[in-house]
Amino acid sequence: MTADLTRFSINQMTVKQLSLPELVDACRDVGVPGVGLWREPVQAYGVEAAAKLVRDAGLTVTTLCRGGFLTATAPDERAAALADNRRAVDEAAALGTDTLVLVSGGLPPGSRDLRAARERIADALAELAPYAEEHGVRLAIEPLHPMFASDRCVVSTLAQALDIAERFPAHQVGVTVDTYHIWWDDRAPAQIARAGATGRIHTFQLADWITPLPEGVLNGRGQIGDGAIDMRAWRTYVEEAGYTGPIEVELFNDTLWTRDGRELLAETASRFVEHAG
Amino acid sequence: MTADLTRFSINQMTVKQLSLPELVDACRDVGVPGVGLWREPVQAYGVEAAAKLVRDAGLTVTTLCRGGFLTATAPDERAAALADNRRAVDEAAALGTDTLVLVSGGLPPGSRDLRAARERIADALAELAPYAEEHGVRLAIEPLHPMFASDRCVVSTLAQALDIAERFPAHQVGVTVDTYHIWWDDRAPAQIARAGATGRIHTFQLADWITPLPEGVLNGRGQIGDGAIDMRAWRTYVEEAGYTGPIEVELFNDTLWTRDGRELLAETASRFVEHAG
Repeated sequence: MTADLTRFSINQMTVKQLSLPELVDACRDVGVPGVGLWREPVQAYGVEAAAKLVRDAGLTVTTLCRGGFLTATAPDERAAALADNRRAVDEAAALGTDTLVLVSGGLPPGSRDLRAARERIADALAELAPYAEEHGVRLAIEPLHPMFASDRCVVSTLAQALDIAERFPAHQVGVTVDTYHIWWDDRAPAQIARAGATGRIHTFQLADWITPLPEGVLNGRGQIGDGAIDMRAWRTYVEEAGYTGPIEVELFNDTLWTRDGRELLAETASRFVEHAG
Repeated sequence: MTADLTRFSINQMTVKQLSLPELVDACRDVGVPGVGLWREPVQAYGVEAAAKLVRDAGLTVTTLCRGGFLTATAPDERAAALADNRRAVDEAAALGTDTLVLVSGGLPPGSRDLRAARERIADALAELAPYAEEHGVRLAIEPLHPMFASDRCVVSTLAQALDIAERFPAHQVGVTVDTYHIWWDDRAPAQIARAGATGRIHTFQLADWITPLPEGVLNGRGQIGDGAIDMRAWRTYVEEAGYTGPIEVELFNDTLWTRDGRELLAETASRFVEHAG
């Protein structure tokens, strides 16, 4: 199966029951060439130690998740968010990945103004993007499903993400294409083509859509093949748009997290080959 | 307050703890001039009896909810859905409302093809729309929030709804504009203008967006003013598009349903005036 996993990357959150050394071991055993890492477990392990661990194992760090949360209006909160995002850029550079995923943030308490919140993201990127470039890191705005628009991410579609990203050079700011968030959107294929035409597909992630959604709707993403999304169709869209990079599987799922992490990694790799390979 | 309630209509589901006679009484007491009714409680009471009850009370039936669920592929299921929708048209006509709200239906089991499901809706409407016209009823396609795309409604945006509706005369098929489902969509104001330009805003409904969403995400709609949606802005959009009809408040909320229905109706009317009046 190894040959078919050339493009595959496992996002650390999918198998968060594994420690970082366990994840690295499991990737070697299953033949997984890439990992998308998260800041919190990397910080807990130590950024430099984590970087050495994955580098010594020959793993490619395909993304770091995540920066963002740039919608605050209070000056001190905004300054803190910018400082934290600069640290995220530093961590991405230390880990050797060229892509920092950004989840934009929701509406501030009491606000009903999505448009203004989206503008504050663009304002913040004007400060962050040059800093990221200096460190060899590209920012990848991730539109999240519209069900997260109020409390997590005011950027809900690829079109909205590109409207922001295109204010910057493509090597500074692009987008994250994640099937879970955009599969319902009949405009998304055209927006993928738009993103590809200017080299802005900075990462491509997979998760399947299953129902019923759990309370809070955060941790109900489906294993590849279990849900409503035609994975091969979306892979075709990004490849026709010129994307040749890694394909990350990123699942948040309370049930999957109760399982043996190594077994789950092997299953996920197998599902990737079956449904998106 | 009565004068400010001229445009207000209460959707029966908002106060489903009230029986139909209790609802009619409460509307009189609060000064509510319109009701949006649901098929199941109307059928349980008797369609003709319900029609007489609301007519005698001088209430306007602003909509009947709902027809639709037109995405089946199996011929017998499709025929059953069409027959049920003809009955819904008959019931709407008997109740004296000119608007039947349509919730399109989700993906059939095992299907991943949203586009084909949307086409089957258009095919079904080609049969239903002339029947509805003969009975003086307009069909109002309701885009539901994208979080319902797989299991309830493959039509997720006003643009998608209009792409279907515009294949038919406006007096046969239009759309339902419901703030809960479209508030996140930066394209929605332009689509409301598009709908208004051809007389296709057949009903306008309000519900607020609150989080966290409950398991299954169906019954978590917020009381007007409790959430993230700028109600007055959306009222302005539909009115600038030429809409002068009733404004229905339709909430599905397990917590609100535990309260006294008459008190809830009065509160809802008051919130309407405060936030959307």
